Amino acid sequence: MIERIAILGTGLLGTSVGLALRAGGFHGSIVGWNRSAAGAQEALSMKAIDSIAADPLQAARESQVVLLALPIYATLDFMEKLSPILGSEHLVTDVGSTKAQITAAAGRLFNSPERAAFLPGHPMAGKERGGANLGDANLFRGAVWLFTDEATGQRSPHSAELVKDWRELVASMGSKTLDLDPARHDELVGWVSHLPQFVATALSALLEEEVGAAPELKDVGGRALREMTRLGSSPYSMWRDIAATNSEAIQRTLHALEQRLAHLRENLRTAALRDEFEQANKFRRDQ
Amino acid sequence: MIERIAILGTGLLGTSVGLALRAGGFHGSIVGWNRSAAGAQEALSMKAIDSIAADPLQAARESQVVLLALPIYATLDFMEKLSPILGSEHLVTDVGSTKAQITAAAGRLFNSPERAAFLPGHPMAGKERGGANLGDANLFRGAVWLFTDEATGQRSPHSAELVKDWRELVASMGSKTLDLDPARHDELVGWVSHLPQFVATALSALLEEEVGAAPELKDVGGRALREMTRLGSSPYSMWRDIAATNSEAIQRTLHALEQRLAHLRENLRTAALRDEFEQANKFRRDQ
Repeated sequence: MIERIAILGTGLLGTSVGLALRAGGFHGSIVGWNRSAAGAQEALSMKAIDSIAADPLQAARESQVVLLALPIYATLDFMEKLSPILGSEHLVTDVGSTKAQITAAAGRLFNSPERAAFLPGHPMAGKERGGANLGDANLFRGAVWLFTDEATGQRSPHSAELVKDWRELVASMGSKTLDLDPARHDELVGWVSHLPQFVATALSALLEEEVGAAPELKDVGGRALREMTRLGSSPYSMWRDIAATNSEAIQRTLHALEQRLAHLRENLRTAALRDEFEQANKFRRDQ
Repeated sequence: MIERIAILGTGLLGTSVGLALRAGGFHGSIVGWNRSAAGAQEALSMKAIDSIAADPLQAARESQVVLLALPIYATLDFMEKLSPILGSEHLVTDVGSTKAQITAAAGRLFNSPERAAFLPGHPMAGKERGGANLGDANLFRGAVWLFTDEATGQRSPHSAELVKDWRELVASMGSKTLDLDPARHDELVGWVSHLPQFVATALSALLEEEVGAAPELKDVGGRALREMTRLGSSPYSMWRDIAATNSEAIQRTLHALEQRLAHLRENLRTAALRDEFEQANKFRRDQ
């Protein structure tokens, strides 16, 4: 039923969605738009999109599904612009990493019977760097694609059908879907995604300051160091909006880790160190 | 020239050394001893050693090179026992992860012209779990094998020759060697090895407590979470002696990271967040 998709934002995620849709057998048209023309051109040359839109709003109007693959504040801006110009023949969805603000905006701007549907989504997939050139048809294979939909039953039958069809396209990209309450989503990803990122950033920044200039460093650091700092490559531009829209949850996780590290530091020679290792072992066994 | 090697401790490292020596073309005899008989049996069945010694001290006396592949305090104990019974026809070396105490003991107990040589060593290779069954002939390939030798020129010509030959065997296992001052070694590995381990342990233990029971967790956590907690599997038994023999350096690194995390936490919505990401990016670019 879905024949026309607009991807607004052809960075890593937008480009990967285009490629994954094709790999999953989607035969409709995919139009792309990107803030920088080079990113759109790259996505086009990789065949992630069929054509480049000059005007993202017009491309949205002419499509059935609009995928916002943009930073969170840009997503919120587009939601404001798209709400008045789209109707129940449209579905808008997104890939933003925090969901409370986007889901609240969806309730305010979309999802009544005469309006477009908005399905808040978050694929748990990515790379430590962005860019269309890193786009990957298999990025979502085996990953979980989260949804934080609060609007079931409030939509027109037509847009409810589009929601159902988009979920099927997500499955065709190799992802498993999981539905979460938006507040629970933001709390959970605060622990399992945002905290690990900020730890890697702080650890990498600290090591740059303390041993970045040491000539022996390149030789001495092994796999463990590379793994624990890989996310240190993540750019500020990918994380600024996440930090700003999930600040309280992230602050709680960081504060809890600071306390945990202090506890370790004070117990390097006591039996409490054993307890901490055993607790950590348990987490890994359970995964 | 080296024809008889005794490996005391056939866990992951001892077994891997036996396998790597064979893979590198060593044709002499390798006798092994392990505190638990099962570990020695496993190493024998993997052909990492040719025979199992009933008495580690006698095996040491009958070998030219004695490799102590044991936890640090067990290494220090063996150094005390071996010093009076070996002579300048012997070389003792080790694989301990901290080097200040071992190198000081080497100066006190070995390395005079009439005594055995002791070459303090530390291969920067390992796995998050131990055990002979994980032994790997390629574990040291591409890794750096650190030495903190302070005794050059104090040894008999014969034992100095053994030191040179052992360094060549290390190269035959695929490792690059690097010489460091012992205090500098312990400081540097505090930053690039011990801090990443303790962070992974604290993070894993915290996540076990906060979200370990969440049913969605298995699905939501991706590659980043797996990488940042992989070292959480490391057992206390591997890290107890490291924590106890490098406490001050580790305390400094943990305290510095606590401050760094607090700084991030207080700046999730300010320009200082950008600085921190850029500093982290720089560390990764330089690696």
